[in-house]
Amino acid sequence: MTVIGLGMMGAALAGAFLKAGHPTTVWNRSAGKADALVEQGAGLAANVGEAVAAGDIVVVCVVDYDAMHAILDPVGDALAGKVMVNLTSGLPEDAREAAKWAERLGAQYLDGYIMTVPPAVGLPQTLLFYGGSKETFEAHQDTLKVLGGNSVHLGPDAGIAALYDLALLGILWSTLTSALHGFALVGSEKVPAAALLPFAEAWITHVALPSIKGAAQQVDAGEFATNISTVGLNAAGLVKMIKASEAQGIRPDLMVPIKDFLAKRVADGHGADALASMIEVIRNPE
Amino acid sequence: MTVIGLGMMGAALAGAFLKAGHPTTVWNRSAGKADALVEQGAGLAANVGEAVAAGDIVVVCVVDYDAMHAILDPVGDALAGKVMVNLTSGLPEDAREAAKWAERLGAQYLDGYIMTVPPAVGLPQTLLFYGGSKETFEAHQDTLKVLGGNSVHLGPDAGIAALYDLALLGILWSTLTSALHGFALVGSEKVPAAALLPFAEAWITHVALPSIKGAAQQVDAGEFATNISTVGLNAAGLVKMIKASEAQGIRPDLMVPIKDFLAKRVADGHGADALASMIEVIRNPE
Repeated sequence: MTVIGLGMMGAALAGAFLKAGHPTTVWNRSAGKADALVEQGAGLAANVGEAVAAGDIVVVCVVDYDAMHAILDPVGDALAGKVMVNLTSGLPEDAREAAKWAERLGAQYLDGYIMTVPPAVGLPQTLLFYGGSKETFEAHQDTLKVLGGNSVHLGPDAGIAALYDLALLGILWSTLTSALHGFALVGSEKVPAAALLPFAEAWITHVALPSIKGAAQQVDAGEFATNISTVGLNAAGLVKMIKASEAQGIRPDLMVPIKDFLAKRVADGHGADALASMIEVIRNPE
Repeated sequence: MTVIGLGMMGAALAGAFLKAGHPTTVWNRSAGKADALVEQGAGLAANVGEAVAAGDIVVVCVVDYDAMHAILDPVGDALAGKVMVNLTSGLPEDAREAAKWAERLGAQYLDGYIMTVPPAVGLPQTLLFYGGSKETFEAHQDTLKVLGGNSVHLGPDAGIAALYDLALLGILWSTLTSALHGFALVGSEKVPAAALLPFAEAWITHVALPSIKGAAQQVDAGEFATNISTVGLNAAGLVKMIKASEAQGIRPDLMVPIKDFLAKRVADGHGADALASMIEVIRNPE
């Protein structure tokens, strides 16, 4: 087992392998980061070529794809016959190109995303997404599950894990920002965030989650009928939201694209559709 | 008990009062909507003046504040001594003005929001927000709870219920739109929404909700320290998200204001702060 890249996440990955009893060799561009791992029993490679040579599985977790190529391109031939597990973040197309690059060098390639923070690496419920060869994943999943018990192979596309990662990050960013918008709205009347919080939590659990579930069904069926919450009704609501935010002295920016998506649906004659039909605008750029 | 306005929601309100055994008089601008309620025992007022005169509590649920004033201004004097419960949607400032108007006419005034769809009116778990006089709310809460067991008085500001309503609606809109963005992202690779859904549900429950809880504490404390997920890290993530969305052929619009909020924090020297510090941008327009 080799781990290249010993930032907070890479160090957690190497630590999980060591804890599970896997002989593990580590390497990092700047020295010193390996000390704690060496104390736990890791082998320290003198250079990246030695690191790649040391393990059958080479886990790479560096800051971006440029860094990955800067480190590995000079020792590319050493990857022949190895399983490269790339846990470096990037775009789906970065992953797809890296897969081609690794395969040209004779390596098997998996592209993964760790859907948690470093301290949660190695827990049974920890989620990791993988894309790439199913056979490679299945052959090594017992080892990979050392990093997180909920390691999931999503498909043969090496870019698919990056896509799922972005999809979930987008939900986190947007949900959190909308909560902050809500805290700012009530805060403009000196109401603390803690007063809105329990309502927001119950609302997300009992209203937003079922709405998302219903939306998924409508999206997959391509059917956007509703008799309750129409695009037209919500388009008017968004206009009100933006007005009210401005009246309370806060920035409505997050709500503006949603208003525009809905207005476009209304203009296209779909005002009576369900909210989920907004996806038609999102996936059909002008 | 009087209910003015018999759209889907108003009819559900009147139905809940009738079911609880309250003598209820109804009125609607266009006739015919009352028929089913009259069959259930409602009295039908011949005109709005008669409707207001019939009940000690006058519940109003019409399309907007303009409609409310068009209906009630001509019979304003009849409101003297009544409790007006306004469940019409509008801006916080609409509610505050309506409160002044009603009080000038000698009425007590509560401004409420029904946080659910018409079929859920009258259930024990159904949430209604109220703002306005606490004494008025407490004197009539047993009656009001007929409309929803979880009826909450938020404060003396008549506009506060509108603000909480907007805060929660904003969370719903944004969360749902981000899920649609995610469905569009994976859909661009022919992955159905149903494949992302279980991950999205778990992610919202186990990652987004705790993040929102943490953010509320940070917002109230005004302390945005973190050693995990900084503004700077996420600002880079948002740039990647927008690139990836465009590369997959979908519109990144929802992510653009979040990227801009974070870029502003970085530019202001707060790149090492926690994500929740974005609220400083939201509540401080240029």
